[in-house]
Amino acid sequence: MPPTENDYPTTEISRVRREYPRGSHERAVIHALLDAAPVCHVGYVIDGQPFVTPTMHWRDGDRLYWHGSAASRMLRASDGARVCLTCTFMDGFVLARSAFNHSVNYRSVMAFGTARKVEGDAEKAAALKAFTDGVFPGRWETLRPMTDQEVKATSVLWMDIEEATIKTRAAPPGDVDEAAFPVWAGVLPFHWTMGEAQPAPDMPDGIALPEPLSALIASGRLR
Amino acid sequence: MPPTENDYPTTEISRVRREYPRGSHERAVIHALLDAAPVCHVGYVIDGQPFVTPTMHWRDGDRLYWHGSAASRMLRASDGARVCLTCTFMDGFVLARSAFNHSVNYRSVMAFGTARKVEGDAEKAAALKAFTDGVFPGRWETLRPMTDQEVKATSVLWMDIEEATIKTRAAPPGDVDEAAFPVWAGVLPFHWTMGEAQPAPDMPDGIALPEPLSALIASGRLR
Repeated sequence: MPPTENDYPTTEISRVRREYPRGSHERAVIHALLDAAPVCHVGYVIDGQPFVTPTMHWRDGDRLYWHGSAASRMLRASDGARVCLTCTFMDGFVLARSAFNHSVNYRSVMAFGTARKVEGDAEKAAALKAFTDGVFPGRWETLRPMTDQEVKATSVLWMDIEEATIKTRAAPPGDVDEAAFPVWAGVLPFHWTMGEAQPAPDMPDGIALPEPLSALIASGRLR
Repeated sequence: MPPTENDYPTTEISRVRREYPRGSHERAVIHALLDAAPVCHVGYVIDGQPFVTPTMHWRDGDRLYWHGSAASRMLRASDGARVCLTCTFMDGFVLARSAFNHSVNYRSVMAFGTARKVEGDAEKAAALKAFTDGVFPGRWETLRPMTDQEVKATSVLWMDIEEATIKTRAAPPGDVDEAAFPVWAGVLPFHWTMGEAQPAPDMPDGIALPEPLSALIASGRLR
């Protein structure tokens, strides 16, 4: 598929091969899911062995970021390497009349690119500020400032999304031709929600939950 | 670490390198998380490019299974290949007094092995029965029986867990030495739950939700 302004380009790596109606390369839809998911799974290869590591990510345009300890194997191994970053919402079990037609409702993005390290302490600090404020609006300025040593101990990786696919299933079982078969069929939905904030036990008295955090909890961001 | 009856063996692939108290190789704990997670992310490599695909999995002892269309790239590419299968529960954001000490509460298993195809239609059907009844107890016998063609259209992969690691964080922010700093700190917990069953719109009248499914919903299995 040739790229357009609205879609990511597609090669054999990301072409949707099966169940075509579930797949898309549309930028806006892919971005929305990447932004909603608080965690991704990053795939990388060391000596032919694949590794899949869960981590938080953030996005700026077509660029994805993730971070970790400068000593992390994932971060050291990924610089300059091909990676796949996948975000998934499992939305429910789909129970059909046959085992074959059982399925899951889900939304998942696979994004492909080459990982690079953010170079320079100022650049790293700026990326970490964007990360922090992206998840928790306005929080960076309220925190004990980051030290030079902390910046040095943190690695930030980025990749430009070269190709990406979103796949979605959000429907009752598809075996309507077998609907007369006498077995319960339907969906067992999953919900992923944020619960009540749990203040640290050792906080000084009189510090209330900041408004942006109440708003985050109320927003149901995990959707 | 030498393997014991209770622990998976460890090489450089799975050794816990950092934050040691969070990591373990204990079989029983690893199995419990693999069984609770309704989805995993499988990492595999094609021509040097890593792919990370979400899919359901199931377990029999130290053997993990997953399945899909016989035409699936993931299943065709994985036979005989090294894979990493990761299951993750994201349990909450951990907000500290400094950006550096922010974290997440989570539980995650990484399991390593070599993928193999289940050969033989009877063996495949038996594996799919174990899968179906494992998630939905007793359901297989209530379904429209699987056809030979459906068995042939389905591939089942397995791997024996050669090494595995579980990492866990379940705690308030760790920066107690900075507790006097005047900013809100604590945990924003996530909950992953199963909602009310949604019957298929085209079911015949009089088919109630089977008891094992009510029990599954009530059990809060997604923990």
